Amino acid sequence: MKVIGIADTTFARYDMAKSAIEQLKSMGTGFKIVRYTVPGIKDLPVASKILFDKYNCDLVIALGMPGPKEIDKMSAHEAALGLIQVQIMVGKHVLVVFVHEDEAKDEKELAWLSDRRSREHAENAYYLLFNQEYLQKRAGKGLRQGFEDVGPIRGEY
Amino acid sequence: MKVIGIADTTFARYDMAKSAIEQLKSMGTGFKIVRYTVPGIKDLPVASKILFDKYNCDLVIALGMPGPKEIDKMSAHEAALGLIQVQIMVGKHVLVVFVHEDEAKDEKELAWLSDRRSREHAENAYYLLFNQEYLQKRAGKGLRQGFEDVGPIRGEY
Amino acid sequence: MKVIGIADTTFARYDMAKSAIEQLKSMGTGFKIVRYTVPGIKDLPVASKILFDKYNCDLVIALGMPGPKEIDKMSAHEAALGLIQVQIMVGKHVLVVFVHEDEAKDEKELAWLSDRRSREHAENAYYLLFNQEYLQKRAGKGLRQGFEDVGPIRGEY
Amino acid sequence: MKVIGIADTTFARYDMAKSAIEQLKSMGTGFKIVRYTVPGIKDLPVASKILFDKYNCDLVIALGMPGPKEIDKMSAHEAALGLIQVQIMVGKHVLVVFVHEDEAKDEKELAWLSDRRSREHAENAYYLLFNQEYLQKRAGKGLRQGFEDVGPIRGEY
Amino acid sequence: MKVIGIADTTFARYDMAKSAIEQLKSMGTGFKIVRYTVPGIKDLPVASKILFDKYNCDLVIALGMPGPKEIDKMSAHEAALGLIQVQIMVGKHVLVVFVHEDEAKDEKELAWLSDRRSREHAENAYYLLFNQEYLQKRAGKGLRQGFEDVGPIRGEY
Repeated sequence: MKVIGIADTTFARYDMAKSAIEQLKSMGTGFKIVRYTVPGIKDLPVASKILFDKYNCDLVIALGMPGPKEIDKMSAHEAALGLIQVQIMVGKHVLVVFVHEDEAKDEKELAWLSDRRSREHAENAYYLLFNQEYLQKRAGKGLRQGFEDVGPIRGEY
Repeated sequence: MKVIGIADTTFARYDMAKSAIEQLKSMGTGFKIVRYTVPGIKDLPVASKILFDKYNCDLVIALGMPGPKEIDKMSAHEAALGLIQVQIMVGKHVLVVFVHEDEAKDEKELAWLSDRRSREHAENAYYLLFNQEYLQKRAGKGLRQGFEDVGPIRGEY
Repeated sequence: MKVIGIADTTFARYDMAKSAIEQLKSMGTGFKIVRYTVPGIKDLPVASKILFDKYNCDLVIALGMPGPKEIDKMSAHEAALGLIQVQIMVGKHVLVVFVHEDEAKDEKELAWLSDRRSREHAENAYYLLFNQEYLQKRAGKGLRQGFEDVGPIRGEY
Repeated sequence: MKVIGIADTTFARYDMAKSAIEQLKSMGTGFKIVRYTVPGIKDLPVASKILFDKYNCDLVIALGMPGPKEIDKMSAHEAALGLIQVQIMVGKHVLVVFVHEDEAKDEKELAWLSDRRSREHAENAYYLLFNQEYLQKRAGKGLRQGFEDVGPIRGEY
Repeated sequence: MKVIGIADTTFARYDMAKSAIEQLKSMGTGFKIVRYTVPGIKDLPVASKILFDKYNCDLVIALGMPGPKEIDKMSAHEAALGLIQVQIMVGKHVLVVFVHEDEAKDEKELAWLSDRRSREHAENAYYLLFNQEYLQKRAGKGLRQGFEDVGPIRGEY
């Protein structure tokens, strides 16, 4: 039985964890989920560390929604660096799912994007734990989470 | 009995620690507070580490007020990275409460913001230690500390 | 028998791992290859750590293709820092092969560049493991991977 | 008997260590001083680490004078990050005293600033080691090292 | 007998290691030199770590020549951070000798600068290992490696 941690924030404007959890449950069994909510994205690195250390998680999905200001971009950068450090300290994946508020043209699209990106990274989490070969088959395919896939380079050389 | 560390600075122009301590005491019991004052925000990472190591803190609130210049922004960034590192080294939360001098339109608002943000993060500290479920119920709600909450995304998709 | 790890992504728009593996196989024997595919470049640091820890790799080639946007540049920077950290934690090389989408003038050149840079770093990987002296002879020669070598400084002083 | 380390550089254009040492000696007894000079500010992190490890320092004062160019700012940033890391590795303070060449309007002011900031941080070092309560009384008072204190926020809210 | 490591790259356009080694040999005895060549500057942190761990170096000189593009500046920054980390992990100096291609007005000056800076940092390496007092006497003197010394601040205050 694998344990998947979900770290999310009260700062985000959409319940991304709900989307991720729903998607995970739709994909199969063999895992249980532990959720841990913190105030903001800069709290996600230690939240992930706690999920690994205290809750024996095998993988964590860290969900956040940085605001549109310069200082929010900086917070996202700092959080991202911390989340990479946690991963290499424990040797386990944290799938970082950030939706920047200014990626979407309006609130409706922002909701759609938050839901979709969370679900597609939940799929990646599932494949990393249970079906690494599936990812390998899709290597170099220009896949994206949220907006449409860009796809592989077209044309010969 | 939990131990909450308060790290603050002589550089800040408002006694943010006083606000945080008052708020903590108003919320409940079951904890004691240790305060440690350093010169500036770049001293806060080691102050937090000392609060964890020597004073057995279970959580630290790190309070600082970066100035308005470019070099102050850089100091805040450096401190923030160090504070994330401390957290993942010890597996415990540091709630980072930074009020940037240029966030407020005048000194009166700066005082109000410093007080309010310190109090709201003190609340978060309390919930992280004693009532994690309360935070989870508020996940994705667009909460902010200091200025008004932005709230969750409105509208369906 | 040496073990060479190949970490690549589903985000990339070209199968850079295929090029690297082909090139490695053309160069000699005495090694086996383990491939591990992750979603994006920010997953490459932990992928490399896992390749060292679980698969006993002696060297890793980490392949990625950052997109053209500002946020993609930031992701590449964060990944690069994590990849350096992994290397100094384990004391083994990760050859980082990033092809930025905006380095090429069109998709045809992007495909060519992805193939060529992957192959030339695969050569470097081989020399680091099996023929360190070959690299030393080429020290200070202005070598590049992908586009043409710049060459050593011309002229006397 | 406490040990205070002084790390300084040949790059700086003022003997900041002399000012810091004079000030320390004027404040009291109960400590000895070890000085370690390196070429530039990026050598200060390891210099501090060596002062802690080999010379058993209880606190280090790291003194440097970054030049006015963009690359000097970057060096100061890199050094600052390393100095924070050293502190959280050993759980002891490094007081970082940087005087940027372009902070002063001419060489005379630069000399004054270098002397004064070094002395005021030497005072902070003394208080951190011997009189933590003195710092706590001055928390939130808008203190600065070098130029005049900004002071606490004026006015009620 | 001390061991000095020399880490250099095939990316550089000048054989900086040759200059450094010549200079070291001209300064005295009591040390041997180990050279390790890697492709680019981002490989220098792990090269230095390997020189410390496998070759028992007491000090490393890391030589590189970042290109003129924005991405080269970022690589230099990433490498510099990694090189600081290595130093504080092992408690030994890495003297980082970077010559940026755009520091010189033409190739002739670039060759001169590469030679001279490498030699002057080799001198610093020698003093750090064998004559720390010599550096201390020159503290605060505005020394530079490569271009002319700026010198100490002139005038009284």
